[in-house]
Amino acid sequence: MLDLHEVHTGVLSISPELEVSNDVELAEAYTPGVAELSLLIKDNHELSRKFTISGKLIAVVTDGSAVLGLGNVGTKAGLPIVEGKSLLYKTFANVDAIPIGIDQVDVVEFVKTVHNISSSFGGIHLEDIKAPKCFEIEDELQKQLDIPVYHDDQEGTAIAVLAGLINAAKVAKKELTELSVVINGIGASGLATAKLLYSAGISRLTLVDKQGILVKNDKSLNFYQRQLVEKINSDHDGGDLSKAIFQKDVFIGLSEGNIVTKEMIQSMNPNPIVFALANPIPEITPKKAKEGGASIIATGSSIYPNQINNVLVFPGLFKGLLESGGKKVTLDLQNQVANALASMIEDPTEDKFIPQVFDSGVAEKVSQAVCSFFYKK
Amino acid sequence: MLDLHEVHTGVLSISPELEVSNDVELAEAYTPGVAELSLLIKDNHELSRKFTISGKLIAVVTDGSAVLGLGNVGTKAGLPIVEGKSLLYKTFANVDAIPIGIDQVDVVEFVKTVHNISSSFGGIHLEDIKAPKCFEIEDELQKQLDIPVYHDDQEGTAIAVLAGLINAAKVAKKELTELSVVINGIGASGLATAKLLYSAGISRLTLVDKQGILVKNDKSLNFYQRQLVEKINSDHDGGDLSKAIFQKDVFIGLSEGNIVTKEMIQSMNPNPIVFALANPIPEITPKKAKEGGASIIATGSSIYPNQINNVLVFPGLFKGLLESGGKKVTLDLQNQVANALASMIEDPTEDKFIPQVFDSGVAEKVSQAVCSFFYKK
Repeated sequence: MLDLHEVHTGVLSISPELEVSNDVELAEAYTPGVAELSLLIKDNHELSRKFTISGKLIAVVTDGSAVLGLGNVGTKAGLPIVEGKSLLYKTFANVDAIPIGIDQVDVVEFVKTVHNISSSFGGIHLEDIKAPKCFEIEDELQKQLDIPVYHDDQEGTAIAVLAGLINAAKVAKKELTELSVVINGIGASGLATAKLLYSAGISRLTLVDKQGILVKNDKSLNFYQRQLVEKINSDHDGGDLSKAIFQKDVFIGLSEGNIVTKEMIQSMNPNPIVFALANPIPEITPKKAKEGGASIIATGSSIYPNQINNVLVFPGLFKGLLESGGKKVTLDLQNQVANALASMIEDPTEDKFIPQVFDSGVAEKVSQAVCSFFYKK
Repeated sequence: MLDLHEVHTGVLSISPELEVSNDVELAEAYTPGVAELSLLIKDNHELSRKFTISGKLIAVVTDGSAVLGLGNVGTKAGLPIVEGKSLLYKTFANVDAIPIGIDQVDVVEFVKTVHNISSSFGGIHLEDIKAPKCFEIEDELQKQLDIPVYHDDQEGTAIAVLAGLINAAKVAKKELTELSVVINGIGASGLATAKLLYSAGISRLTLVDKQGILVKNDKSLNFYQRQLVEKINSDHDGGDLSKAIFQKDVFIGLSEGNIVTKEMIQSMNPNPIVFALANPIPEITPKKAKEGGASIIATGSSIYPNQINNVLVFPGLFKGLLESGGKKVTLDLQNQVANALASMIEDPTEDKFIPQVFDSGVAEKVSQAVCSFFYKK
């Protein structure tokens, strides 16, 4: 496997879109050709996005502080992840993306750094940055920049989960907005998922993290968790995961492997929906979840049916943002994309209720949803 | 011309080096394949340069503050220039490079920004940054980073000029180190050229800028000009360009168009060498220089013979640095590269004493010079 990454020094390269083989072509591609372009852009800054790669290039940015399953590996060890994502952008949606590792500096300096290079890009994809730092960084960048800023661990996961849940509810013959849902793991993904489900009308949410069910006024919560609990989780008085999961319709795990038991699944409402998304080891294996009585099951892994994978989302999302000129990945947009993804499965069943990565047309569908969202506005 | 830059949104794109068309390939290219790589790099940071694009990708960085012939156009209007240079890297030396525009911030923040993203790159090419800011930025980055940092307007120009001068001296049948040389325009290029010529043994240098011949203790000089004057220009008591050029062997113009007269050329020593490198309009046209008695003439433009163009230098230079693992573009290295370039012309004549951009083997020759420099060390 490693030699695949070594032979070309990574999995990406830069390609010329213009041939330069004589003085005439050189004059067009470089001086004096670029001087003309430069003067045009000097007078109208927006033209840089029309005439240079900055109009189509996505920076996939990480500081390697929260890599899925590995934790804080450092900036350089985060590079293979963002390079892999850049490869997937090209593979699935023909979107040009480039990996950018950023030193592990404080939030203010991180934001400044991305701001200072943002003229070079058509969008910022944040990846594997630790919570709660990632929330502050994303908020601040969204305020400061005039290009889309997206955090895959947040919005990407949230969209993929909602897409799965829309169809899982159909399989369970339950109303989406009536579902009682436990989300376990309130980091970047859990928080964003909770926000999106709530905005999609699912108000019966129970949020659980290491300390148990999140409750108001818990000083161990970070600002963003507290904000969320104030809004959507205020009627709880605490308890552990077994208590949280008791008589609920849905379990969504964005936490760690092997923490849900067969008995917990047995204690859920009839026709329970289990999204055990920890990777590589799910919160409960599909086999054990089935023994507990669940049959509507998704994981984060491709070795089981119904993989919930952000690759379903980000390539098409940025394709659509670049095409439409859309700037903000709002909750409404996330909702629309999730519905578009879900709609790709005409008759959801236990065996398949969410599109899979190599299904044809996924990125196109997502991109169209994004475009129609911004065009109708 | 503009549509060439519009049709693909710029002149570059990202290419995949790995096909991803099924779950097995996805597992290798992305999870869990990249997790393995990530852990390897976590334990040995240097491996990131072996297994990710960061080992081969050059950032061509500008803030658009000093674009040749245009001045301060701003970051976004600087993008076509650095994108063009990135294209030339690929075209001439198969080196992968990407344009990065940086906001016009102060030196400290500029350096921090580049430092914070430097894990992503195998080298930093600085471009079109105003003097004296560019000197501080380059010095600081060279100190802080473990990858090569190169300023094309400085080292690139200096190398190309020295290469031309080595052969021009042969045509004039004069000893290189005996030449008396006037350099007009002591910005980034002039300063770097003076330093390189001096280190190559040319001690009879007269430096001229807008205020006339540079002299010690002139408070209008910046720190870097003052440092240079202390060292190599201390026996002058000032005067204008006509005085400076009188009875000299060489005029090197890195200044602005139409400021040298036929009479000035007539006042030079026999067999004068005239490098009128301002672009697009030279300090004196070859026609007028000839009327003044010069026949060994170079310009910065491809419409005349003997174009002195940095494209001769940077693609091969970084190819060699990446191949050899060389870190610093020292004066000794610049000297070696200039000599290699000059040696490509077996019998220099007035008509051709410096290789031209499309001559075959230029980048290869430069790259080999760099490699042999670092291998013999």
